[in-house]
Amino acid sequence: MTNAIFQMAELLARLPGIGQRTALRLTFHLLKAPEEYLQKLGEEIATLRERVCPCSECRNLSQGDPCEICSDDGRDDSVICIVESVPDLWAIENSGAFRGRYHVLHGMLSPLDGIGPGELKIDLLAARVAKSGTRELVVATRSSVEGEATAMLIRHVFEGRDVKISRIASGIPHGGELEYSDKMTLGRAFEGRREI
Amino acid sequence: MTNAIFQMAELLARLPGIGQRTALRLTFHLLKAPEEYLQKLGEEIATLRERVCPCSECRNLSQGDPCEICSDDGRDDSVICIVESVPDLWAIENSGAFRGRYHVLHGMLSPLDGIGPGELKIDLLAARVAKSGTRELVVATRSSVEGEATAMLIRHVFEGRDVKISRIASGIPHGGELEYSDKMTLGRAFEGRREI
Repeated sequence: MTNAIFQMAELLARLPGIGQRTALRLTFHLLKAPEEYLQKLGEEIATLRERVCPCSECRNLSQGDPCEICSDDGRDDSVICIVESVPDLWAIENSGAFRGRYHVLHGMLSPLDGIGPGELKIDLLAARVAKSGTRELVVATRSSVEGEATAMLIRHVFEGRDVKISRIASGIPHGGELEYSDKMTLGRAFEGRREI
Repeated sequence: MTNAIFQMAELLARLPGIGQRTALRLTFHLLKAPEEYLQKLGEEIATLRERVCPCSECRNLSQGDPCEICSDDGRDDSVICIVESVPDLWAIENSGAFRGRYHVLHGMLSPLDGIGPGELKIDLLAARVAKSGTRELVVATRSSVEGEATAMLIRHVFEGRDVKISRIASGIPHGGELEYSDKMTLGRAFEGRREI
């Protein structure tokens, strides 16, 4: 088989969600794409790591250090939202639901997978909270065993310190059907009910 | 938002079948991928066009000219299979159903889209057939209006010349359910019935 084409498809097929067929289809698409686009795409992929670095303050991934959020003066310094990953940070940013600072853990507590407080660099968060005037930590990890364990860890670490620890609400999603909600979600929704 | 990440996602989202969300997911995957892989993928994309060229004999896309199939001595020179595209050629090759030579049209006859015999470079095929001892042309274009029109064009071009023109069969696919087959497919299946 044609080597360069096959080789390209093989590389693309290593990406998540891209099978052999899609990889070949993409390769043939690339063969017809403008030369300029190929050059740009190729270069950006090859240099992606150089251009993106972790923020030394919050561990967000960004083009500069400190990241765009940490260097933004218009944000609320008193609240830090703790997230599992950069995509989660982006999702929250895009929702406009939060205007404080962030802290990215790059994972969740999972002792069975060897991920403990050290791997999550909780000490970095603790130091940050100690030096800044943080009044609240909002734990926005997902509602799963690991997500809850991470929230518990953070509560434990900051116990007795003058900082409020909160957890984002878990329940029926906006517009979601009660009929098709799973038991856990319904359980959480009742547990988290509020007086109106 | 983080520029380098966003920019990368934008480029990836231009590929067929890759939406904004998938593009972002792929970007975050790339950020975690081995540096070596990023370098290789980037370089191969940027240089893809240089490394792939059309075969001057059959118009297949390959790393060399003539292509691997044209330079393979072990194939049947008397039959040429005419295909619409390189992916179609690959599909036939992978099936092992054909061991002759190929000719890639890079399109199908479609006068409304401005694709006539000139665009398909039918003269190149005619010259090839004239100089080599081709005895049969198997038209393997798809079973559609354009595919059939292309087959008719080829029959017309080689009319009165000492070469047999055949068409691959159209019918119920292997293992396909008659119950769910469309009218056209059933029609073709009956039309092409053979005595057993």
